[in-house]
Amino acid sequence: MVKGALSDITVLDMTRVLSGPFAATWLGEMGANVIKIEIPNGGDESRRNPPFSPNGTSAFNTTINRNKRSITLDLKKEEGKAIFRELVKKADVVLENFRPDVMDRLGLGYEELKKINDQIIYASISGFGTSGPYAKRPAYDVIAQAMGGIMFSIGEEGGEPLKAGASIGDLTAGMNSIIGILAALHARSIIGHGQKIETSLVESIIALQQSENNRYFVTGEIIRGTGSKHATNCPYGAYHAKDGMYMIGVGKNELWCKLCEQVLKQPEYCNDPRFDSIANRVAHKQIVCEILEGWSKQHSVTDVVDTLLAAGIPAGPLLSIKELADDPHFAGHRQMFPYMEQPGVGPFRVTAMPIKFSDTETKVYRPAPALGEHNEEVYAEMLGYDAAQLAELKEKGII
Amino acid sequence: MVKGALSDITVLDMTRVLSGPFAATWLGEMGANVIKIEIPNGGDESRRNPPFSPNGTSAFNTTINRNKRSITLDLKKEEGKAIFRELVKKADVVLENFRPDVMDRLGLGYEELKKINDQIIYASISGFGTSGPYAKRPAYDVIAQAMGGIMFSIGEEGGEPLKAGASIGDLTAGMNSIIGILAALHARSIIGHGQKIETSLVESIIALQQSENNRYFVTGEIIRGTGSKHATNCPYGAYHAKDGMYMIGVGKNELWCKLCEQVLKQPEYCNDPRFDSIANRVAHKQIVCEILEGWSKQHSVTDVVDTLLAAGIPAGPLLSIKELADDPHFAGHRQMFPYMEQPGVGPFRVTAMPIKFSDTETKVYRPAPALGEHNEEVYAEMLGYDAAQLAELKEKGII
Repeated sequence: MVKGALSDITVLDMTRVLSGPFAATWLGEMGANVIKIEIPNGGDESRRNPPFSPNGTSAFNTTINRNKRSITLDLKKEEGKAIFRELVKKADVVLENFRPDVMDRLGLGYEELKKINDQIIYASISGFGTSGPYAKRPAYDVIAQAMGGIMFSIGEEGGEPLKAGASIGDLTAGMNSIIGILAALHARSIIGHGQKIETSLVESIIALQQSENNRYFVTGEIIRGTGSKHATNCPYGAYHAKDGMYMIGVGKNELWCKLCEQVLKQPEYCNDPRFDSIANRVAHKQIVCEILEGWSKQHSVTDVVDTLLAAGIPAGPLLSIKELADDPHFAGHRQMFPYMEQPGVGPFRVTAMPIKFSDTETKVYRPAPALGEHNEEVYAEMLGYDAAQLAELKEKGII
Repeated sequence: MVKGALSDITVLDMTRVLSGPFAATWLGEMGANVIKIEIPNGGDESRRNPPFSPNGTSAFNTTINRNKRSITLDLKKEEGKAIFRELVKKADVVLENFRPDVMDRLGLGYEELKKINDQIIYASISGFGTSGPYAKRPAYDVIAQAMGGIMFSIGEEGGEPLKAGASIGDLTAGMNSIIGILAALHARSIIGHGQKIETSLVESIIALQQSENNRYFVTGEIIRGTGSKHATNCPYGAYHAKDGMYMIGVGKNELWCKLCEQVLKQPEYCNDPRFDSIANRVAHKQIVCEILEGWSKQHSVTDVVDTLLAAGIPAGPLLSIKELADDPHFAGHRQMFPYMEQPGVGPFRVTAMPIKFSDTETKVYRPAPALGEHNEEVYAEMLGYDAAQLAELKEKGII
């Protein structure tokens, strides 16, 4: 196991901030040769995003730009465009998350690039997709969550729509762009050439709701927030223990009776007419909650979860990243939070890919690059430029 | 554009309920030949999951099993195992979401299957991953959300942790399994053989929180719920208009001044010391909210969003699936909710893949199958069985 699954693939990563950089980082984690192309002055704007490491570098930027080398290139200058076209000849993938018309206006859209390299896979991530009436609207993750429908299903019962805590629009759009890129890589062997693939933040949010959208189409019902508890099952959700909260999933009568008999030691509730079906438990959910918490509030989350699992009842603690960071399973055995050595910072902890390959490596191949750190190395390797040529390009503000 | 990107790939889909079936449906939407293998009596348990179409079939099952053919096969019987091994010889991918030890106990784990077909890609989706102390715990989406850390960042300010409305653990695990499968397909050309890839629901949730986990590692801070509004920026979140809510993203001072001058027509607030920096606006977020809603509550969501966008301020309505289903951009131009013709049901609307390919098809190739609907077709096509052989297998309860 010495090579990553994508170790023969070169990616030109033109992306900024979150969705695109994240996608390119995962491509790199699977072994791809990822070249991050940044504007000469300042680079990716996320280099100025908090939080910051003690040396002043953006930790936000560092975490999603590992596994890349950085070069600078001004695509607004003709000489910069010419250099970019030369790089495209040597690459497999161009990944960008500009607004949909930017690359076309630069003369570097897919229609132009495929003339130079018909094997190139051009991946676009945008807010709304590259076509249609909303194509040019600005989109942040919060707007994607708002327009993608998911906020209506998040929130307290009867409360206002809320947003998800993580940037799930950016992240799932990044994941979808990887799926598109890898499928297009495979398709080269079928159709003989590359193609353009695109995804968007809002459409990625919409697609997360397969079941919820389906329910509306079939029943007309719009799923609304029900706090931390299931809308139509009980007890199925987060409840309180003595020192925190836990999740329990009593999906059917058999588990309810197990809970009453083996855990609560109140077998009489098993066939109590108030609780003898899912519908009846939901109708009496307040009493069910009191009965369950009457027991669980006397015990620690750990004890509650252990007891429930021992009885065969699905359960788990509510963990935050504080607990996860030291968890023997996730941090220990599964190595979800490896350290990398970030120059100027020291050991820097990141979140690993949640995909494990038996025969090809996924790992942090290199830390996040400083702006233009690999100009010399990459331009020499890919285009054969020497020090004098690079000095001239730098002098002219091209790189 | 006549072939899907994966049109030369055959997938044996052994999965049940949500994460796996969803992943296999997307593989099918990209053109893969997906054979859903179900137990002879009853099949995928999600065939009994609500909501139901008027003819009594599970709409839940239908929506995430399009693009597949269904065959039945009892893997607990020796003859069933033998048939499965024959199918594996003709397949590229085996996808399963059993608990980690099930396939091994059946004698059909990756170590066995690779002896039969060294090109096979074996993909496992589980709750916690196939190794480590939690490997055998039961996991539903809600438990993945609870243990994956994301609930802490969802909720009202100062309120309890909430869950996301959609099954984001199942869906992102499905997406991650597709990434793993496609990367492993590519890697066959590098390493010369297939491999096992695995992902899990909890790890997929953990990986969605790249930035939030990073913030904890760097600052020790745990991101907590801030309702529908941004924790450290203002006005950045969902606010009220006359007839609903809208999202606004005023990320910097320049946009705040645009808002005050061009939209609110109150230019004096631009440099008001209470509002002249992000930090000051956050400190006075209640007043900012009153000022903003003092204007927006007099107008419809549509007018508010149009006015904000015209002024260059990122904004969007809060849409539910009800609005999305008829939206000219998403439903119309982007075709996110196509109809398929489902036998016994009629036109059935699904949520499309959010990835568009310029040169290979993604489409609903076929409706969801009835249990064992394609026994004759698939067993003839893949193994050359005739009617008499199939009748005998049926008689013996193998299929």
